[in-house]
Amino acid sequence: MTMETIIEYIGFIGLFTFAISGALKAINKKFDPFGILIIGFVTAVGGGTIRDILLTEKSVFWLNNPTHLFFILGGVLIAILFKNKLNRFNKSLLLFDAIGLGLFTITGNQIGIETGLHPLSCMVLGTITGSFGGVLRDVLVNETPVIFKKEIYATISIAGGAIYFILLKLQVDNPILQIIPILLMIIARLLVIKFNISLPQIRYNDENP
Amino acid sequence: MTMETIIEYIGFIGLFTFAISGALKAINKKFDPFGILIIGFVTAVGGGTIRDILLTEKSVFWLNNPTHLFFILGGVLIAILFKNKLNRFNKSLLLFDAIGLGLFTITGNQIGIETGLHPLSCMVLGTITGSFGGVLRDVLVNETPVIFKKEIYATISIAGGAIYFILLKLQVDNPILQIIPILLMIIARLLVIKFNISLPQIRYNDENP
Amino acid sequence: MTMETIIEYIGFIGLFTFAISGALKAINKKFDPFGILIIGFVTAVGGGTIRDILLTEKSVFWLNNPTHLFFILGGVLIAILFKNKLNRFNKSLLLFDAIGLGLFTITGNQIGIETGLHPLSCMVLGTITGSFGGVLRDVLVNETPVIFKKEIYATISIAGGAIYFILLKLQVDNPILQIIPILLMIIARLLVIKFNISLPQIRYNDENP
Repeated sequence: MTMETIIEYIGFIGLFTFAISGALKAINKKFDPFGILIIGFVTAVGGGTIRDILLTEKSVFWLNNPTHLFFILGGVLIAILFKNKLNRFNKSLLLFDAIGLGLFTITGNQIGIETGLHPLSCMVLGTITGSFGGVLRDVLVNETPVIFKKEIYATISIAGGAIYFILLKLQVDNPILQIIPILLMIIARLLVIKFNISLPQIRYNDENP
Repeated sequence: MTMETIIEYIGFIGLFTFAISGALKAINKKFDPFGILIIGFVTAVGGGTIRDILLTEKSVFWLNNPTHLFFILGGVLIAILFKNKLNRFNKSLLLFDAIGLGLFTITGNQIGIETGLHPLSCMVLGTITGSFGGVLRDVLVNETPVIFKKEIYATISIAGGAIYFILLKLQVDNPILQIIPILLMIIARLLVIKFNISLPQIRYNDENP
Repeated sequence: MTMETIIEYIGFIGLFTFAISGALKAINKKFDPFGILIIGFVTAVGGGTIRDILLTEKSVFWLNNPTHLFFILGGVLIAILFKNKLNRFNKSLLLFDAIGLGLFTITGNQIGIETGLHPLSCMVLGTITGSFGGVLRDVLVNETPVIFKKEIYATISIAGGAIYFILLKLQVDNPILQIIPILLMIIARLLVIKFNISLPQIRYNDENP
């Protein structure tokens, strides 16, 4: 199996787990089955879709390859069938979600580089790819996106992109170049969850206390 | 009048009625006149716009043809002038909305086929075209999209796409190929409204009851 | 300095002030620092990004030029450091926001003309460019977009586009063609704020009073 194939498969796992996370949220909100499917779908493909739309010349990744859709359908079905078990095994789910975040972030950065963009733009693309599926999920279920408030999430995506560019500058080769930031992001994300770490809030003395 | 012209005209009726439905929602929410115009506009063109944006090479349908905008302006104006009457004739409005759903769904599927996409991707495109104007409308007025919860809506769009592909496989010719799923979707939607049918909810024993 | 350079610089000021306005809102909502950065970013580039995505052949303006991102980073940093001062100088902020609205509206209209669109489509593009960053900001912090309800905002953008096309018809030359509607929009916006003017609401006797 080549590196590329491995990355493609991990990408499918990312879609699969993001679809589960979206579907569980929709189940929680008492959506009907097709509402659950749509939220699972949007959570899984949302970030990569916004990335591909921003890159004018790139076609949207899931449109031409139905395999992506089968993994999402699978994730949603698993979520519906095993919703109680999955709640109990919540931590294994968070692991997959962390893998998805790490991988999608690096995918976004790499696609940015291939398009010839500035490192800063690449990091923005990587963050969008990794986190905006979850943002769309929360907007559609009418909640304030969780990544802005309670969890360090986008932060890890931005930091992962920065580490990737530092390694690139240090002329680290493929696939170490990708594996290091992906692993660091997964570890960081799991530590954040385990120890319930938040970024310090900005203190703000506003008129409406 | 050719079949194509008929479809184009029904498309305009779809825009017109979606604009009315969006505008009425915004009036209800006490938006100012231009807020009402924007919500009517987004409801009418939202689904088709997301479809055209996803298809990288396709230009957005309403940008190059102001006729679409005139139908939307007309719908919003009608909604503002006859808001009370329209509330009373709510059912005639729902009929037009059902026509819009049916037609936009098939339009989305057909554009997907013309672009050479997999049937599954076409059905996703059709569902987005038919339902996501209403999703955007509800997100902008800060409500949970109604199509995910209380009404069978996206479900009909997905089913309509499936029927369309079955008929295509059976080598049914134009325009019967389009008319059958459109009519079935309209009838299904009206039955759902008439008998207040919902999909069964997924039971879910979560921690926060 | 050429007119084009001046417009580019005022554009950067627009990004800078929209970033401040977004960041202040996110601080208010107790977002974490990177949540604040993302809301500042989306507020600043949102309108122009939707415009560029709608114009299939146009690449997204901030992707290829990191200068835009530096101005946004600057705005967010200023908002975090001087949040209390900025609240006190709220009016100077509103001035910059009004400048951004005026300039972005005309930019959107001009890009529409260059793309060969109908005046009505251009006015829609101008309104999207001027107002939809704020709409995205409010959707992401889970509020009903303020521009639909409490303030005359999109209205000024639509009117500004109309004035621009009237002047174009009267064969007014650059840069007067741009300066007049921009100044009129800024003045109109400041008067609206100063005198707390709203559009009349549509009276609506609905079933749920």
